[in-house]
Amino acid sequence: MLFDVMNQNDSPEYLERKRFFDSLLTIFGRKPVLEALQDNSVDLHRLHLAKSNRNDGIVEEIIQLANARGAEIVYHDRQGLSRISKNAKQDQGVAADLICQAYGNYKDFLANPPRSNYQLLAVDSITNPQNLGMIIRSVCAGFVDGLIIPEKGCAKLDALVIKASTGTLFRTRILRCKQLHRCLEDFRQNDQHPADVYGLSSHANAQLKDVPSDTANIFVLGNETHGVSDVVSERCNKMLAIPMNNQVESLNVAVTASLIAFRGQI
Amino acid sequence: MLFDVMNQNDSPEYLERKRFFDSLLTIFGRKPVLEALQDNSVDLHRLHLAKSNRNDGIVEEIIQLANARGAEIVYHDRQGLSRISKNAKQDQGVAADLICQAYGNYKDFLANPPRSNYQLLAVDSITNPQNLGMIIRSVCAGFVDGLIIPEKGCAKLDALVIKASTGTLFRTRILRCKQLHRCLEDFRQNDQHPADVYGLSSHANAQLKDVPSDTANIFVLGNETHGVSDVVSERCNKMLAIPMNNQVESLNVAVTASLIAFRGQI
Repeated sequence: MLFDVMNQNDSPEYLERKRFFDSLLTIFGRKPVLEALQDNSVDLHRLHLAKSNRNDGIVEEIIQLANARGAEIVYHDRQGLSRISKNAKQDQGVAADLICQAYGNYKDFLANPPRSNYQLLAVDSITNPQNLGMIIRSVCAGFVDGLIIPEKGCAKLDALVIKASTGTLFRTRILRCKQLHRCLEDFRQNDQHPADVYGLSSHANAQLKDVPSDTANIFVLGNETHGVSDVVSERCNKMLAIPMNNQVESLNVAVTASLIAFRGQI
Repeated sequence: MLFDVMNQNDSPEYLERKRFFDSLLTIFGRKPVLEALQDNSVDLHRLHLAKSNRNDGIVEEIIQLANARGAEIVYHDRQGLSRISKNAKQDQGVAADLICQAYGNYKDFLANPPRSNYQLLAVDSITNPQNLGMIIRSVCAGFVDGLIIPEKGCAKLDALVIKASTGTLFRTRILRCKQLHRCLEDFRQNDQHPADVYGLSSHANAQLKDVPSDTANIFVLGNETHGVSDVVSERCNKMLAIPMNNQVESLNVAVTASLIAFRGQI
């Protein structure tokens, strides 16, 4: 909230703090939080607990891991905790703000991409957490530079997604944006590091393998049933298909993601 | 059973009947059977119904579709039906023998492969039906010639697999075998159309992209947790890895399947 109000302020201190808070990923639920803290590569900013928790084995273990990291532990009433977890039904009285170095706003990436011919994936309304987790896993393992996830319309980065990502979520460069179509517009219009934007569609004539790999490219994966939305399609330079045999109509979206993430490497 | 006893008989009539029975895939459950019969490319040999079925809407619809195909309908007591479905708990009083032209014994394939440099996938103990269904979908859509599935150790080709395959199971060339290691041995030792056999393993030094595509190859995918079994590994010419970044330990097995199925096409 603070940062929305201060939006006009762009002092270096402000920007650095904003970048820090943008890198925080809040997860919830006893098992997901425990598993995240058991991963040594995961940094903890703050642990949030409901005062009403009975300190059973798993909560004790979480507290120990938080203490070992020297992280702040904050106690809340149930209502306060649910404001943080944004999921009172499933938080089980536990939430954690993780510091994910690779998690941030897309604008930071665009200002300073890791290479001129950066390759990104973007998801437009992927609602199945298993698919989103598998996409994250393939992006992390593969040869693309990150995954753009809009705040609305996609599965939340919750326990199911973390599990399907086999924990790779914490190491994957995730670029957050509010609305995907505006973010893609920013990438296309950028003066210094513009990208071409491609939507995947089984009905397209152009093919994935026709896209040059020496230019910056963003590949947009659409909803499991409806494909890429109209408002996003309008921002695409071109729609692309992957050739298929036996009259198969489409590939699983996570499979499509992996074919893009490993393009030229297999 | 009949055909096991007659195993020494190889008259042309016998072989033709054997090939026909090998091509039958028995599925069960009201919705899976209905959906299969709604697919015009699926041929029905026999519909099996429990005498105890109340003929509600969905059973009526199944009977109509069977009649439209001129297929035989056989009524059984519950026990008789469960001997056919092999799954009394989930058959819901309905089973169907489908004629899948692309479903058969691996020996027929080996005697007459569609090209000299045929490419096959094989599954060794894939137990998650979603993974098996996704693998089937990628094999069907991709650029390999079929999928070897052993009778034991893998998820059964049931409603969950059919759903995850999005119905492509009925169009995918499935090569059945009893024991995978013996089947792979047959492929390697074959005089006329021998294949090289590769097991996928994230610990391997050799890489998928080093495998030539102008030779006949079989790629074996191992269990989701334990990888390729020892008895199968011993039959592999070599183990192969797919290069991965960010210390990711492994890819989802269905993703690995699709990277192989689309090798050289993306």
